Amino acid sequence: MNNIYDNRQFFDQYSKMSRSQQGLSGAGEWHQFKALFPELSGKSVLDLGCGYGWHCKYAVECGAKQVLGIDLSEKMIHEAKAKNADSKITYRVCGLEEYDYPANSYDCVVSNLVLHYIADIDTIFRKIYLTLKADGVFLLNIEHPVFTAGVNQDWIYDSNGRSQHWPVDDYFYPGERVAHFLGLDVTKQHHTLTQILMGLIKAGFRLDVVEEAMPSADMMDIPGMSDEMRRPMMLLIKSVKQA
Amino acid sequence: MNNIYDNRQFFDQYSKMSRSQQGLSGAGEWHQFKALFPELSGKSVLDLGCGYGWHCKYAVECGAKQVLGIDLSEKMIHEAKAKNADSKITYRVCGLEEYDYPANSYDCVVSNLVLHYIADIDTIFRKIYLTLKADGVFLLNIEHPVFTAGVNQDWIYDSNGRSQHWPVDDYFYPGERVAHFLGLDVTKQHHTLTQILMGLIKAGFRLDVVEEAMPSADMMDIPGMSDEMRRPMMLLIKSVKQA
Repeated sequence: MNNIYDNRQFFDQYSKMSRSQQGLSGAGEWHQFKALFPELSGKSVLDLGCGYGWHCKYAVECGAKQVLGIDLSEKMIHEAKAKNADSKITYRVCGLEEYDYPANSYDCVVSNLVLHYIADIDTIFRKIYLTLKADGVFLLNIEHPVFTAGVNQDWIYDSNGRSQHWPVDDYFYPGERVAHFLGLDVTKQHHTLTQILMGLIKAGFRLDVVEEAMPSADMMDIPGMSDEMRRPMMLLIKSVKQA
Repeated sequence: MNNIYDNRQFFDQYSKMSRSQQGLSGAGEWHQFKALFPELSGKSVLDLGCGYGWHCKYAVECGAKQVLGIDLSEKMIHEAKAKNADSKITYRVCGLEEYDYPANSYDCVVSNLVLHYIADIDTIFRKIYLTLKADGVFLLNIEHPVFTAGVNQDWIYDSNGRSQHWPVDDYFYPGERVAHFLGLDVTKQHHTLTQILMGLIKAGFRLDVVEEAMPSADMMDIPGMSDEMRRPMMLLIKSVKQA
């Protein structure tokens, strides 16, 4: 995972996004992601790429007894400790690739919008499988392959600046993609749908939900939101470690 | 399902495609689809949209004791009886929506490149679930949502006629799409990935393989084949009726 979230300019811009200002209710996919959470009362939760810690705090509010949130970005962990502290939550600066994933330790692992920064998702999926208890749940939100295979991850515009369509290319060549996001060039990793789903299945997971994020009806008044109906941006997955 | 395959002009063009002339070995996805077949020795097989009957014949060669191939097109069934007849195979002119799907009757159901003509795939998935025996396998190849959401299901070309990228639009508005194919306007049905996978999961299936069709290395010399690496055209799925 790269460390662009520790870039001051980028982080300042990120802090102005509605998901940073308003938390979960400001995230367009939350109405769908929330519905995938299992019963968390008395459970242990690991949040991979916890960012501001919104999901960690939500897990505690749902009754989780213990939550660990890790993030590679020091600035993110700083914000998480300031905004979403709780005696049941531990925050730690640590990348997904560096974490030690203790065996059979968690009831639920959450990873929201971070795995498209990871080149080798197969290895992470296998580690998550091992760190979950039997019947443990892995909740995943990753940028959609249609989005990451988008040319420059932007629309094609006509001469009047209107968006024409979403351009896909080089779909079966996974790997680095550079997108302009929040004023900087951000390097992401494109994974095909096959890689994401077969990575999970081959790690031992059962796929219970595979769902593309779609704006809710009450969000359609927000400027630009209707374009979110034109191409999928995020892929939400609920997978279960089979006993 | 529409009946365009009974249009003489369309059918004549279809008969010139490599998958019609050469059978399974002429189908770019066969090297992947073939690998998904379960052991068929002594098994009952249903082929939904059997076309020329290549998969029916393959099932018999794999030891299937009984195969039913149905297709809405009279011309297709005529060809199947001429090209791929076998005492263990019954061919019948019948649409997927009209078939009666006897309960607990088949070990394997195959559906190759036909469900993108069906508007209500949920109902078909439920019927297939019921007609399968416990642990029965449903093998599905459907046009990929990226393909069916393609604008006119064609590339965007530059002024020199070179393909620039694959345009996706109106992804979350499923339903009719008209594509120009084999010289005629063909009406297909766009389904999102969510609809396809959740349709299967909600019907009771476990997803064992979800794989996008990708040309094999030895096909890359065929003209135009390298473009198949630029956007996914077909989605192959192996799903299992859980006991």
